[in-house]
Parts: sequence; C-alpha cells; structure tokens
Amino acid sequence: MALQRCTAWHSLKHPGSGNGPGKDTVTEHRDARTMQASDSILENLLSELEALGSRNDAVQTQKDKRYLNITRDTGEFLALLVKAVGATTVLEIGTSNGYSTLWLASAVPDEGQVHTIEHQEAKAREARDNIERAGMASRVTQLVGDVRQALSAVPETVDVIFLDADRSLYLPLADRLFARLKAGGLLVCDNAISLEREIRDFVAWIEANEALTMSLVPVGKGELLVYKEAE
Amino acid sequence: MALQRCTAWHSLKHPGSGNGPGKDTVTEHRDARTMQASDSILENLLSELEALGSRNDAVQTQKDKRYLNITRDTGEFLALLVKAVGATTVLEIGTSNGYSTLWLASAVPDEGQVHTIEHQEAKAREARDNIERAGMASRVTQLVGDVRQALSAVPETVDVIFLDADRSLYLPLADRLFARLKAGGLLVCDNAISLEREIRDFVAWIEANEALTMSLVPVGKGELLVYKEAE
Repeated sequence: MALQRCTAWHSLKHPGSGNGPGKDTVTEHRDARTMQASDSILENLLSELEALGSRNDAVQTQKDKRYLNITRDTGEFLALLVKAVGATTVLEIGTSNGYSTLWLASAVPDEGQVHTIEHQEAKAREARDNIERAGMASRVTQLVGDVRQALSAVPETVDVIFLDADRSLYLPLADRLFARLKAGGLLVCDNAISLEREIRDFVAWIEANEALTMSLVPVGKGELLVYKEAE
Repeated sequence: MALQRCTAWHSLKHPGSGNGPGKDTVTEHRDARTMQASDSILENLLSELEALGSRNDAVQTQKDKRYLNITRDTGEFLALLVKAVGATTVLEIGTSNGYSTLWLASAVPDEGQVHTIEHQEAKAREARDNIERAGMASRVTQLVGDVRQALSAVPETVDVIFLDADRSLYLPLADRLFARLKAGGLLVCDNAISLEREIRDFVAWIEANEALTMSLVPVGKGELLVYKEAE
C-alpha cells in the first residue's frame, strides 16, 4: 500500500480536446498561464501513454502485461461526469499504468482524492511515476494488492466508482462496492459493450436491485452508468 | 404562458428499462407499490408516445407537425444524468409533445421543477395533456412562445439545460443560456451527431469559452454534454 502526497495541481480545461482555437484563453492572467502549463504537461503525458498503450498492446501477448487503457473519449467523458456530479472522493478499481487515474484526478477539486487499486505491482509503479510526472500525486492515493483486501483501506463513502478490472470479481464485490457508494452516487463500469458477456451476471444483479438505475453509453468500450438512488 | 400545478408524483426506478426480473421489488411495502403504479402509468405513456412519434413522423411531411422526440435511450441517459448531478431546476428548450419533458420530470425530486419552452401552441397543448396524464404537472412549468421572450420567465439559475429546438437559435442564445446555467452545471444538446453541421458554430463558440468543457456521447441522435466550470 502506498500513500502519495505531492504538490497541488490546477484544475483543467478540457485537457484532451486539443483541437483548435478553443484552447486560447479569453482573459490572459497569471493563473491562466499556470493552468495552461499544467494542461500542457498533462496533455503531453496523456498522448505519450496513448502511444505507449497502442504500441505495447498491439504486440504484447501476455494479458497481464497489456495496459488495456480506456480510450481518450472515455477519459474525457469520465472527467466531465466526475466534475458534473461534483465528486470529491473517487474510487477506481484497476489503475493499470494510471492513464484513467490521470483523467479522474484531473476532474476532482484540489481537496479531492482518487483512491485507486491495482493488484500488479509493476503497473502500480508505472502509475506512480505517471501520476507524479503529471504533478497529481496530492490527489491520488494508490493501493496495491488484491482488491478484496484493499477495499477496506478506502473511505467508507465515495461519490463515484470507476470499475475497470478483473470482471470475474464484479459480482462477488457488488454488495461491498455499492455499499461504499453514497446514496445519489454514480458507478461507471468499463467494457460494458466490448466484454458484455463477462459482466452479464453483474448487470443482472444491478437490475434486480431496486435502488439502482442504469444507462449504457456507447463511448469507448461501452460505459455502463449505474446511479444509486438518493435516500 | 401556462403554469401547471398538480398532485405530487413519486420518483422512478428506471422507468424505461422494462426488461425482466430486475423490476421486481426486493422489499415490498406500500410506498414501493405506489411507486410501481406510477412507474406503470409513466411506462405506458412513454411507450404510447414512442409509437405515436414513429407513426406520425414516418408519414408527416410538414416539419412543424413532426414530434422529433428523443430516443428512449436518450431519455434514460438524461434522467440518469439529472439524478446524478442532483438537479432540482431543469430548463428544457423544445418541449414538443412532452416526451423528453416526462423523462426530465421523472428525474427531479418532488420539490424540483422542469421549466420547458415550446413555441408551437398545439404541441404545448399535447405536452400539457401528457404531463397531466403522467401525474407530473406539479414538477413542470410550461412556457409557450418564442424562446427569446420565454427565457426571461425562467429562474435566473438552473442546474441542467436540455437543448432540443431550432438550432439556428443556439448560437444567438448561447450567452444567455450559459449565463443562466449555474457554475458546475450541465447543458445537454440533442442532435449533436445527426445534425452536427447545424450546430457547428455553437460548438465552436463553446470551444472558445474557457469555462466550458465538452464530451460528445453517441447515445440516440448524439448528445453533446457541456460542463460549466465551478467557480
């Protein structure tokens, strides 16, 4: 288990869009320039990780050595959701090398925190480096180990959960995950279209739960949004 | 301008899913049965309006007589978003016959309010009937007339805006719409894929605005999510 603390990092303006004149500041001042510098560091790192992921995953035959990152549009979507619901505490299951973690961390406020669990130490080390390079360590708590144990080190109530790990664990963990999700909170599950068969039992469990409402969104590999009714 | 008030209506559990055993209650009691009855009324009405929309729009050649409703998955997605961001005040531009309004109203709490603007009186009358049939009149304020005038009757700050109207008005209205959206609020724009060319100038305006972040979601006709940065 590694707890990281580092310097504060400024919130982003659509770091991933990178398309055209929209990136220009309307009002130029010191804060905006600082933010742009942070934008640029994050943007470069995200692009670097996307290239690394494509290159590696195309040739790597061992599944545990593939990064299996979310797509960029999924990252943009996740970040927007985290901001729009005003989440300050996020739980991510499946850090990999931190690509998705960067998007989540970019979306929480300065005082926010992303708790992210990864069972592979090598990937967690890469993630730590990437999170530090982005200057986001103050917003991220990394937990390394089996998710069933690591979960007990996560705050009792989280605002958003992002689920992108070993899918055979989703159903066994469903009770514990939704118990940690605040009433009125949102769980997002990746691969809901690309690997629909592997999460079918988990989806059936959600459907049978009176307090949960779903929407399947065809962004990236398919994002299943699950809302837990407010009390 | 018509202000509607009616009996309270209970919040929904995914009214649109309607698929399988998941709809069963886990704990049966009076409230759950009341909610299920409301679910059933809304569900039947939504299905009826979907059939009407398909039938009418397939043969109707006059654009202003077509309903041009959002798709069901868009309705489910919108309702989930409204709940997840905890919106109590929603502004809809383009009521049509109220199909989307029903989804939005199903997602706000009892004390919440959807303000919806429609310039065609005939459609607004149909919407009023549908909203009353669903028992949702207490949650909906209908405004009938030109959106440029009607906007002044909308609360100064709204949590969510759903934009599904004459697209040539989006850019001229952009300033006023985003001024009414709370900091930290969400605007959703329909037809962002199906009629991408018609909103291109509006999208460029959003891109040029430092306080706005976008994500394009390929649900239904394409939903553009625009987040206004918290202050």
